[in-house]
Amino acid sequence: MNVVVAGLGIIGGSMAKAIKKYTDCYIYGMNRSPLPLQKAMECGAIDEIGSNDTLQKADILVLGMYPDAAVRFVSENADKINRNCIVIDTSGIKSQICPRLSQIAKQHGFAFVGFHPMAGKAQNGFDVSDADLFQGANAIIVPCDAPHNAVEKIASLAKKIGFGTVVYASPEEHDKMIAFTSQLPHVIACAYVFSPACVKHKGFSGGSYRDVSRVANINAELWSELFIENQQPLISEIDTLIADLNEIKEGIRNGNREELAAILHRGKLIKEALGE
Amino acid sequence: MNVVVAGLGIIGGSMAKAIKKYTDCYIYGMNRSPLPLQKAMECGAIDEIGSNDTLQKADILVLGMYPDAAVRFVSENADKINRNCIVIDTSGIKSQICPRLSQIAKQHGFAFVGFHPMAGKAQNGFDVSDADLFQGANAIIVPCDAPHNAVEKIASLAKKIGFGTVVYASPEEHDKMIAFTSQLPHVIACAYVFSPACVKHKGFSGGSYRDVSRVANINAELWSELFIENQQPLISEIDTLIADLNEIKEGIRNGNREELAAILHRGKLIKEALGE
Repeated sequence: MNVVVAGLGIIGGSMAKAIKKYTDCYIYGMNRSPLPLQKAMECGAIDEIGSNDTLQKADILVLGMYPDAAVRFVSENADKINRNCIVIDTSGIKSQICPRLSQIAKQHGFAFVGFHPMAGKAQNGFDVSDADLFQGANAIIVPCDAPHNAVEKIASLAKKIGFGTVVYASPEEHDKMIAFTSQLPHVIACAYVFSPACVKHKGFSGGSYRDVSRVANINAELWSELFIENQQPLISEIDTLIADLNEIKEGIRNGNREELAAILHRGKLIKEALGE
Repeated sequence: MNVVVAGLGIIGGSMAKAIKKYTDCYIYGMNRSPLPLQKAMECGAIDEIGSNDTLQKADILVLGMYPDAAVRFVSENADKINRNCIVIDTSGIKSQICPRLSQIAKQHGFAFVGFHPMAGKAQNGFDVSDADLFQGANAIIVPCDAPHNAVEKIASLAKKIGFGTVVYASPEEHDKMIAFTSQLPHVIACAYVFSPACVKHKGFSGGSYRDVSRVANINAELWSELFIENQQPLISEIDTLIADLNEIKEGIRNGNREELAAILHRGKLIKEALGE
């Protein structure tokens, strides 16, 4: 099988490396700038640098770009994509792009399957990509209108390259869950480090500072796009969080230990019920 | 040297185990309930179970209890504490208890040094205590009015049992920093998991969910006391966080990518300036 990975950042680069390591696929790399392509050739992440006719050979096309760029790439190159090809994106949002990509796929006879690998690092770019980034991670598949066998092929590939769990969701379900599990922690991390106390934390911090602030080292260009394209679910999660923060704050202000303990204890019960 | 550890939870238990492992001190254990004492004897964390006259032999007394209980213990047993003894607490708050403990120490001729080991686990109790819990962790020393050599002795003990950095602070400085580095992440974690989306997160989450929610598995009895005894600095940090969340939320609502990216990018700059 020929796999084309277009966009060799941390996610595209890791997809190329993982597919190389765990399957027999032949991998073509494509990228806007030439340096990641050179590096990918040097370390063996790809077998060949893609050229004009590469998309005609692709059995699977992995889009490793930002959401809008992925739609643009497919839209501009739809004529060149093989009719038997399965195109997957790797974006963090789906409602804004999956219907458009499905539509283009239908018009041109190839398949589109939405794909979201729940893995990443605080750093970005091909240099930090890793063949084992996805080991044990969750993969979310957003089937849209793709044929069943195309969806199964992607699920099977995901398992092969190390993902632990594969779940299926509609674009709307995906975006609602991601607003909570991934986008909100990034919003929290940034808001948290904005406190004037943050720059003085050294010597006074432990694991809980480290954990909550980790993803504040954010790729602002990418996440501003993800946040705005998932505006409504994310704003709703931020509002819920602020309401819950205010409930705890009032408990602290009232100074009644039993009442405050009862509020906090709900956190323990939720985590325990989840087995965490 | 004789060390008495009173209160064998995760922190007291780990202090006993660490002092046992890394020094030649003889260790007495005291605890409200007998089970942790038995366990501590069985695993060699302590050399002897303390009795009525134990406090007269103590060169160092480590208080492993909740803040109010620590003050009560010292206040009720002040007559029995050796005049050459250095008493240290291990509490997460200082303004509400250090002045009282210093006062009792002065009246009875022993020394009191405030001590806060910046380490812990999501679980509590002697069973999860660990001789190496403090490896590389920060230790905050709140000297209050203790003699210089008593403060130095505690700093030197901290280094011996594995702490990486020892910093010094007034009770007020300590509480202000801890409100941000430790208490606020616990408030955030609880408020975060209160979202109705949380119970459905499995399959849709990655590292950022795991990190921000970790400490939601909270000891509500302890933290309600810590939060209320540090009311003003903590409420101030929660208010700052809510204001910053609202700034990001407005950026998302306005839908201008450059403006939102500029807000988020401040998070990256802060983390980078800290070398994180």
